[in-house]
Amino acid sequence: MNTAVILAGGTGTRMGLDCPKQFLLVQDKPIISYCLDVFQNHAEIDNIVIVVSEQWQDYVKENIDKYSFDKFRGFAPAGRSRQHSIYNGLKAVDANCPDTDIVIVHDAARPLVSDEIISSCIQGAKDFDGAMPVITVKDTLYQSKDGENIDQLLKRSELFAGQAPESFRFKRYFEIHNEVTDEEIENTAGSSEIAYRHGMDIRMVKGSERNLKITTIEDLETFETILKGGV
Amino acid sequence: MNTAVILAGGTGTRMGLDCPKQFLLVQDKPIISYCLDVFQNHAEIDNIVIVVSEQWQDYVKENIDKYSFDKFRGFAPAGRSRQHSIYNGLKAVDANCPDTDIVIVHDAARPLVSDEIISSCIQGAKDFDGAMPVITVKDTLYQSKDGENIDQLLKRSELFAGQAPESFRFKRYFEIHNEVTDEEIENTAGSSEIAYRHGMDIRMVKGSERNLKITTIEDLETFETILKGGV
Repeated sequence: MNTAVILAGGTGTRMGLDCPKQFLLVQDKPIISYCLDVFQNHAEIDNIVIVVSEQWQDYVKENIDKYSFDKFRGFAPAGRSRQHSIYNGLKAVDANCPDTDIVIVHDAARPLVSDEIISSCIQGAKDFDGAMPVITVKDTLYQSKDGENIDQLLKRSELFAGQAPESFRFKRYFEIHNEVTDEEIENTAGSSEIAYRHGMDIRMVKGSERNLKITTIEDLETFETILKGGV
Repeated sequence: MNTAVILAGGTGTRMGLDCPKQFLLVQDKPIISYCLDVFQNHAEIDNIVIVVSEQWQDYVKENIDKYSFDKFRGFAPAGRSRQHSIYNGLKAVDANCPDTDIVIVHDAARPLVSDEIISSCIQGAKDFDGAMPVITVKDTLYQSKDGENIDQLLKRSELFAGQAPESFRFKRYFEIHNEVTDEEIENTAGSSEIAYRHGMDIRMVKGSERNLKITTIEDLETFETILKGGV
């Protein structure tokens, strides 16, 4: 069984909105519903768990009923960091979908995830312990410990920007979260990081420029342009 | 004396265009003319040298005359790499503007460079040996030597995306180019890299999200949106 955990706990503060960005309507449909559509319709996805703050659960539930997302298996509360939210999602998977072999963690703010990326992630978790879609980096990136002096220019050919969803063998990934300190969960910057740090073999798979994360108003405009078939 | 070297040698192949992107018309004005405007009008800039392939020199010259860019001091031919183009520009600076103290190297494809960024770069080269504007990085970045296994997640707080213009004390920067092998110039990925690798003290200064580089069609759309006052 493969279970998707959709992270929708963000508060939208970075965009200065009253409404968290994943619930903004684009072409009359909340952003979160775009990725739910893709997971709902994917043949290899059996269950969907959604991590969202309690005040938004009724709103999300209405949309789930409206769009007939029958793979929905329940909510988990948002945590105080992204990785805490993931941990809450894993607990809900353990409680509601105990037969889960592979968990696929996705951001509600990435509405344009494709079937192919989900399939690659599932295959990666079957062949290894997990997978993360990545894209190449266009910027010239420098490393500086003090933010003033340049320590080194990083080799662009060795750099990859991580996207979502990330997939993991569920049991081992959940165990790691049960074993580590709360501080370690707090200080986890990427959901694959905690996995490979504890010995899981996480591979990179091909992501896509289209699979953008909506963080700024410009991202939102790009998403709308793509929906209109402009890009 | 402060001399700007504007790099306009790109061929536009990455965007699949017949016309190099820096010569595309946006609101009836070629992209290159936007940054030329800023350098022409900046009180601390004395001279402007433009690096461009010979076939485009007449076209650029027409625009220079049309927009009264009276700080223009000549062309240099495009090189086979970005750093070769810079070296060609430095040779033209040495020939045409020998009193140059500070050279400011800019990309014609960054039309929205600001007065403030140019001033910071000049000040940085006065206080130290050079300066480069940077912005923080939004992506979660992983390093992988083989493109498959993750070696490490990079600390976002230590990462900076380099922009243009970059400023350098002219004499020392030119000397370095005269001393190193052609191979080293070829393998230089960022124009500050060759400087700090040879002992110049290059500092990071504050860049801007607005100072975007036009690389893709989406970037072009963002530029047009900004010009219309949309962002």
